[in-house]
Amino acid sequence: MTEALSTSKEERMINFQTSPDQYKHWKLRVAGPLATLSMDVSEDVTLGEGYKLKLNSYDLGVDIELADAIQRLRFEHPEVKAVVITSLKPRIFCAGANIYMLGTSSHAFKVNFCKFTNETRCAIEDDSRHSGRRYLAALNGTASGGGYELAIACDEIYLVDDGNSAISLPEVPLLGVLPGTGGLTRLVDKRKVRRDRADVFSTLAEGLKGKRAKEWGLIDDYFPTSKFQESIDGRVNEIVGSNGVGQPMVGIKLNPLQPEVKPAGREYKYVNLVLNREQRYADLTVRGPECMPQKSPAEIERAGDSYWPLQAYRELDDALLHLRVNEPEIGLVCLRTQGEISNVVSVDENLIAHRDHWLVREIILYMARVLRRLDLTAKSFFSVVEPGSCFAGNLLELLLASDRSYMLNHPDELVEIMSSELNAGALPMSNGLSRLQSRFLAEPEKAEAVLTRTEPFEAAEAEEAGLITFAPDDLDWEDEIRVAIEERTSLSPDALTGMEASLRFAGPETMDTKIYGRLTAWQNWIFQRPNAVGPEGALTNYGKPTQAHFDFKRT
Amino acid sequence: MTEALSTSKEERMINFQTSPDQYKHWKLRVAGPLATLSMDVSEDVTLGEGYKLKLNSYDLGVDIELADAIQRLRFEHPEVKAVVITSLKPRIFCAGANIYMLGTSSHAFKVNFCKFTNETRCAIEDDSRHSGRRYLAALNGTASGGGYELAIACDEIYLVDDGNSAISLPEVPLLGVLPGTGGLTRLVDKRKVRRDRADVFSTLAEGLKGKRAKEWGLIDDYFPTSKFQESIDGRVNEIVGSNGVGQPMVGIKLNPLQPEVKPAGREYKYVNLVLNREQRYADLTVRGPECMPQKSPAEIERAGDSYWPLQAYRELDDALLHLRVNEPEIGLVCLRTQGEISNVVSVDENLIAHRDHWLVREIILYMARVLRRLDLTAKSFFSVVEPGSCFAGNLLELLLASDRSYMLNHPDELVEIMSSELNAGALPMSNGLSRLQSRFLAEPEKAEAVLTRTEPFEAAEAEEAGLITFAPDDLDWEDEIRVAIEERTSLSPDALTGMEASLRFAGPETMDTKIYGRLTAWQNWIFQRPNAVGPEGALTNYGKPTQAHFDFKRT
Repeated sequence: MTEALSTSKEERMINFQTSPDQYKHWKLRVAGPLATLSMDVSEDVTLGEGYKLKLNSYDLGVDIELADAIQRLRFEHPEVKAVVITSLKPRIFCAGANIYMLGTSSHAFKVNFCKFTNETRCAIEDDSRHSGRRYLAALNGTASGGGYELAIACDEIYLVDDGNSAISLPEVPLLGVLPGTGGLTRLVDKRKVRRDRADVFSTLAEGLKGKRAKEWGLIDDYFPTSKFQESIDGRVNEIVGSNGVGQPMVGIKLNPLQPEVKPAGREYKYVNLVLNREQRYADLTVRGPECMPQKSPAEIERAGDSYWPLQAYRELDDALLHLRVNEPEIGLVCLRTQGEISNVVSVDENLIAHRDHWLVREIILYMARVLRRLDLTAKSFFSVVEPGSCFAGNLLELLLASDRSYMLNHPDELVEIMSSELNAGALPMSNGLSRLQSRFLAEPEKAEAVLTRTEPFEAAEAEEAGLITFAPDDLDWEDEIRVAIEERTSLSPDALTGMEASLRFAGPETMDTKIYGRLTAWQNWIFQRPNAVGPEGALTNYGKPTQAHFDFKRT
Repeated sequence: MTEALSTSKEERMINFQTSPDQYKHWKLRVAGPLATLSMDVSEDVTLGEGYKLKLNSYDLGVDIELADAIQRLRFEHPEVKAVVITSLKPRIFCAGANIYMLGTSSHAFKVNFCKFTNETRCAIEDDSRHSGRRYLAALNGTASGGGYELAIACDEIYLVDDGNSAISLPEVPLLGVLPGTGGLTRLVDKRKVRRDRADVFSTLAEGLKGKRAKEWGLIDDYFPTSKFQESIDGRVNEIVGSNGVGQPMVGIKLNPLQPEVKPAGREYKYVNLVLNREQRYADLTVRGPECMPQKSPAEIERAGDSYWPLQAYRELDDALLHLRVNEPEIGLVCLRTQGEISNVVSVDENLIAHRDHWLVREIILYMARVLRRLDLTAKSFFSVVEPGSCFAGNLLELLLASDRSYMLNHPDELVEIMSSELNAGALPMSNGLSRLQSRFLAEPEKAEAVLTRTEPFEAAEAEEAGLITFAPDDLDWEDEIRVAIEERTSLSPDALTGMEASLRFAGPETMDTKIYGRLTAWQNWIFQRPNAVGPEGALTNYGKPTQAHFDFKRT
């Protein structure tokens, strides 16, 4: 396998920040309650070399813009009630992930690419479910592979009936891999397509056109070319009308983050990332809010993206993405916090008090998405609770999201953690449970006890309450942390990824966890198999004069 | 990777049939309501070459005996109320799957080995849940890896406190792979161990001894050596006493199956397997019962293992295992049936009428396990419904378990399928749903309509009811089947495995589906990774003077 897209720091840093005025592949147009997000991929503007983004196919760079657009709709355009996703290219909606990009990417890059695209599609569904924006996929041309997977993440799918346009998932028949951006799972779990029909559809390279696609539940409707636009407009009007008028809302601006980039890390305003590359671990510190004034919704709107919860979590999000894609050798992240517990708890109270306000709701939902991004990051996380830290409320979630936590038990120094009402379910994991519920599956009364306590926990109390893993005293502290880091980073990174993916998600499963657990794990397996990526594999040989040859042994 | 354990037909056929008098590794002792299943692995009696089964480590041959013992307990010893699983070796309960066996096995063999061992452990839990037998793991010595995974499949775990014996899951720290026989999932989902403690335990090569193991919920109790046996006995007496006396039950005998083995298949009494090796597909035909007399429970007991449902499903089970392990190149199985629909439905009515009788209950539960084995088999299944077939009641489940079905729509010939009460939930999938429920997630009323109809369905009716995928007429029939087979067997076998694993299990997840979906898929991925199986991988280098070296990039 070539490593053309290997993302080691020497070669290329992938930047996850962008904004509509910088988009190369999407046009975002907002007109009152309607947003139109049009795909118009510039085939020469690629993140890597050696491929062209023909036919609205995409690479990570295209998806970073899509993720940014979804995010900005929520914060900058709260007045939008319907989002139409369509294409500006004739006869093609989207051809999915670029196959040549995949064929020349390293295994790790493919896996990270798929994870990010999955998170973007889940963010669309999160917006629809919690913020009520309705997403319409207006397929004015063929949607294949990731193109149809983008459509199926929307609430409604409409296909043009032009005698040619189809929807398809050609990954299995053409490439020997899975439609791994949620496609298979959403077929049977979201649209509840009958499994035998899903089987036929997923093995049919040419896909299905309007009539049968509708009959099988793969799309909601189809319209002839001449009526396509008016039918979409009609549906949009229904949505916009039925969603009520409400007061006009004015969004806030998401300004660029401005981290100071250093050789050994990144310093944001509230987040500091220090890379200990030799030891293959990072220290990721989140600083709590500087003060604790209660803000009114109007004041929060005025503060905009400088309001602590929004700024801190945007920075945390960026740091996590950076770690994933640009720092693959970092295997362990030590999560630390700095600040006043009372300030964090005060911010949480403020958020809870105004959670029905659109911006506060969006901020809380975004904090939840960032924490889920952490849950789904293939690195170990240890929380380190020391004097001066503020693992309280929303930042207590960092501790609860960690694979382990260490809390200093010091006779003379104040080391505390604390819960807030935000820990009671406002920041759910992908499995639908709060992190406290997931932690105390065997003893739900312990989760209750943590939530009802209004005082901080010292180390011994936190240990007794089951909140932390270890509480070494000050004599053992440094050695214990050092040894824990050394041991963790000596283990097989692959075994740790599989282990953490299993242990982090106890309890119920949801469509999201099925996508990230079951589907992704199978895709990762297939992405390693010679039948896909070997010299004779289907992915390797796609579009070449050579043909794939399979080892037909079933595993 | 060496292919020393490659199981191609030229080299070695693995036989899944055995009986207690042939056991080499286990002693099964039944004394009234107590069965003791003692592990005493003969280190030289291995299924493959190049390794010894030291320290009660196991290979597939050892687990075939365990599966047989569990099965015989249910049918031959219904009087048993408690099963104690223990060891006859000093200071060691079980060291888990043999590492040298794993290190020298092909990827496909490892995957099939793990699947079978998982099914055996799920069969223990199935017995406990549905037949009320209580399984006690009496760990009279160290239980590591698969040894602890066997224990955690039991209802209760007791560890000797001899200053030395421990439980451990050393796979991640020592071998760079997962505890893949359900261990990680059962830690957090069955025993609901806190995830940070599960993390610590699963990365601690030496494991935990009694006190902390109990504190963390990994075992139920621990006893000093001098009190170990009497404590186990005491617990057994409690179980046997509280389970009530009941009437003494006499089991039936499970006689050896006697298939005629041919170069191109196997002919059992009710099951015929024809291997079309050139085309890489098999025809698997189940013959329905010859007649339809209603049998009383006493008559069913007298018929014993020759009673159609038991014999046919034992044969089907054996054929599926044979296909999995001995015929890896067969990618597609065409399921066919032969017989009278009225006879199958009559047998089902008989089973339903007496489902509270112990033997009938065991037969139905076993049919359900065999059908789940089919759901979990990494081959494509097409059902082919032709004149003379009898896809009715329990055999309709074969059709519902298939990835697709084809039913001949013939103007002159009678081709029918039919439901029975057994389709209403008595034969659940691993996800807890009936196959009709899984099929009609979007339209549950359709499942109801199928169940309430007391007439057979002809092809057009079956298609209308949503029961079949395609109903070609007699002109197209042969071509359509031929093309479908050719197309299916031309696709990437790996992509099909991942696709089928995703599409077959829509809807809810259970601990079982998490084990077979999430955990197994991650393990399969890791079993392909150079960090485990490459020349410098941890599994490859275990126990050698050479050391593992990892590529530390996190994926």
